[in-house]
Amino acid sequence: MTKQAYSVAVVGATGLVGVEIVTALEERGFPLAALQAYASVRSSGDEIRCAGLTTRVELIDRARFDGTDIVFLAAGEQVAAEWAPRAADAGAVVIDTSALFADDPAVPLVVPEVNAADVAGYTERRIVASPDTPAIALAVVLHPVHALSTVVRAVVSTFEPVSGAGRLGIAALEGQTRELMHGRSLDLEADVHRIAFNVVPQVGEFLAGGVTRDEAYTAAALRRLLDAPDLSTSITRVRVPSFFGTGMAVSLELGTPLSAAAARDLLRGAPGMHLYDDTEVARYPTPAEVVGQDAVCLGRLRVDEDRATLDCWLAVDNTRKGAAVNAVQIAELLARDYL
Amino acid sequence: MTKQAYSVAVVGATGLVGVEIVTALEERGFPLAALQAYASVRSSGDEIRCAGLTTRVELIDRARFDGTDIVFLAAGEQVAAEWAPRAADAGAVVIDTSALFADDPAVPLVVPEVNAADVAGYTERRIVASPDTPAIALAVVLHPVHALSTVVRAVVSTFEPVSGAGRLGIAALEGQTRELMHGRSLDLEADVHRIAFNVVPQVGEFLAGGVTRDEAYTAAALRRLLDAPDLSTSITRVRVPSFFGTGMAVSLELGTPLSAAAARDLLRGAPGMHLYDDTEVARYPTPAEVVGQDAVCLGRLRVDEDRATLDCWLAVDNTRKGAAVNAVQIAELLARDYL
Repeated sequence: MTKQAYSVAVVGATGLVGVEIVTALEERGFPLAALQAYASVRSSGDEIRCAGLTTRVELIDRARFDGTDIVFLAAGEQVAAEWAPRAADAGAVVIDTSALFADDPAVPLVVPEVNAADVAGYTERRIVASPDTPAIALAVVLHPVHALSTVVRAVVSTFEPVSGAGRLGIAALEGQTRELMHGRSLDLEADVHRIAFNVVPQVGEFLAGGVTRDEAYTAAALRRLLDAPDLSTSITRVRVPSFFGTGMAVSLELGTPLSAAAARDLLRGAPGMHLYDDTEVARYPTPAEVVGQDAVCLGRLRVDEDRATLDCWLAVDNTRKGAAVNAVQIAELLARDYL
Repeated sequence: MTKQAYSVAVVGATGLVGVEIVTALEERGFPLAALQAYASVRSSGDEIRCAGLTTRVELIDRARFDGTDIVFLAAGEQVAAEWAPRAADAGAVVIDTSALFADDPAVPLVVPEVNAADVAGYTERRIVASPDTPAIALAVVLHPVHALSTVVRAVVSTFEPVSGAGRLGIAALEGQTRELMHGRSLDLEADVHRIAFNVVPQVGEFLAGGVTRDEAYTAAALRRLLDAPDLSTSITRVRVPSFFGTGMAVSLELGTPLSAAAARDLLRGAPGMHLYDDTEVARYPTPAEVVGQDAVCLGRLRVDEDRATLDCWLAVDNTRKGAAVNAVQIAELLARDYL
C-alpha cells in the first residue's frame, strides 16, 4: 500500500449495490481518506455514513473526480458509458459493476479469488470490471475444479431474486404478493409475466438463437475469468419470487474424473467458498439464509466418478459477494499493489 | 370399448390430485356407470359431484371393490401398499399415482403419449403406475427427440410448487408469506428451511451419494418410459415459493445433431405438447400461467447443432397432466382396449 488512505467515490450510492459497497468499505476496514457519494436526482440529498465519515449524496451531474483515487460505478451501463471515461481521465481508477466493459479486452474482468493478477491491466484504460452475480459465484467454484480436472461443459440454472432488477423488482414482487394474498387479481401489461408465486424464465432481453443477453454475458464472463475459451456452457437464468439471494443448480462435465472425496477436499479449502456438509440431512445453503454472508455457499455435492461429472448447488448473496463485495475486493487489490 | 360405462373408485378423493382426477373424469367425458370416493377420516362425509353422479366420500376402511372396474389411488405409498393388492384381488384394475410401483417390472409405468402399448402389462398384477410430474413432462418432450436423435444425457433443474407436498405445503407457504408480509419473524423447527421468498433445493429424503429419493425416482422413471437404460441424467429438484405449476430447465446432449428448424418442427407437432414460439419477445410458458392446461408447455428452445445440444424450458400443471390427467388417460386406454 503506497498511500495511508484513499479518496473514494461511489456512483449509484443509494441503489441496492451502492449501499452495500459503502457497507463493505466500512466492514472490511478499507482505508478511507475521503468519501464522495453520487446518485440520480431522486435520491440526492441523503446523508451517508461510512467509517466515521459523513457524506451528503450529490447529483451525479456535479461529479468532479480530480484527486479521487477510486470510483465505484454501481448505476448501470448508461452511467458507466458516460462516467467511466471521465473519471479515468481525471486520474481515478474506475471499478464498474455493469456489463458494459465485460468483453472489452482492454478492461480486466476480475474476481479476486480467481484472477487477482489480471487487475494489473487496469493501467490501459484505468477501468476494472466486476462481473455479474452468476459469473462471480460460478468462477469461484469452478476455478479450483478447472485447475485440477478441466471443466469441459457447465450446465447451469439460476434461481434469481427480484433484487437483481433493482428497487423496481422488489416493489413489483411486494405489490403483487400483497394483491394476491388479499384475493385481488393483478392488472399486468400484456408482455409482463406475473412474478408473485410464479417463476419467470427470462433475465435480460432475447438475442438471436433464443439466449438472453444476460445469459450470454454470464457465459462469456465465465470463460474469460477461467481463461477457458473452449468451455461449453448452457445457462438458463430464471427469476423466482424471492427478494435477496441467488441460487444455482450446476452440473459439470470434467476432462478427467474426480473422486467424491477429492472433490470435497478441494472445495472445502477453496478461497471465497463455504462448503456445507451435505451428508447430514437437510444441510445445504438456501438463498434467503445466506444473505449477509460474503462466501459463495456450496452444498448438495454429487460426484459421478465413472461419468466424470460433478453436480452441486450454490447460494450467494447477490448484492454482497455477487456484486458489492467483489468490487470492494478489487479496490483492496488496487490499494495493496498498485495505488 | 367392451362396456358402455365403468364403475370407478377414487381413493384420496379429497386430496389435491384426487379432486383433479374427479374433475378430469368429468371434463374428458369418461363413461362412468358408478363412482365411489374414499378418503382418510378427516375429510370423509364430503359430497362429490361428477358427471351427474353424486357420491358421499367414505372412510377408506369401508372400501369394498367387488364390481369396481378401475380404482384410482391418489393417497401416497402407504395407502397404495395396503389397498392396491386388495383392489386387484377384488377384480379391479388399479391406477396408482404414488412412487410405490415405479420400479416393479410387473407393473407397467405409463405415459400414454409415450408408451401406451405398455398398459397391456396390467394383466400381471392388475396395477398400472402413473409417474410423477417431472418424469411425465420430461417423457412427453424427450420421447420424440429421443426417437429421432437419441438423447445421451439430460440435465434438469425443476422449479416445483408447494402443492407437490400437498395441502400442508400450501398452508406452509401461505402462512409464512403472511407472517413475513406483516413483518413478523418465523418460528421454524431447526431442520426446516423457510420456503416463503426463498428456494429450497430438496424434494424428498437424501439417499447415499447425495441424490434425493425423488430425484432418483424421476431419473429411473424417465429411463423406463423412454426405454433408454443408458440415458445419463443429472436431475436437481428444487422447491420454489409458488402454489401450482412446475417449471423445468432442460439441457439435452444428443447422439446425432438436430437443426433448430428440425427441432422446432418435431416439437410443434408432438402429442401432448404445446410449443410456445419463443422468437417473439417474452413469449414462453410460466408455471402459474399454464395451470388448468393439460399440455406440457414448452418454450425457450435453443439448439446448438455443432455441439448436438438442445435446451428448453417446460411448464406443466403438476396436479393435472403432471398427475391426475395422466392417470385418467391411462384409464381411457384400459377402457378403450382392455376392459
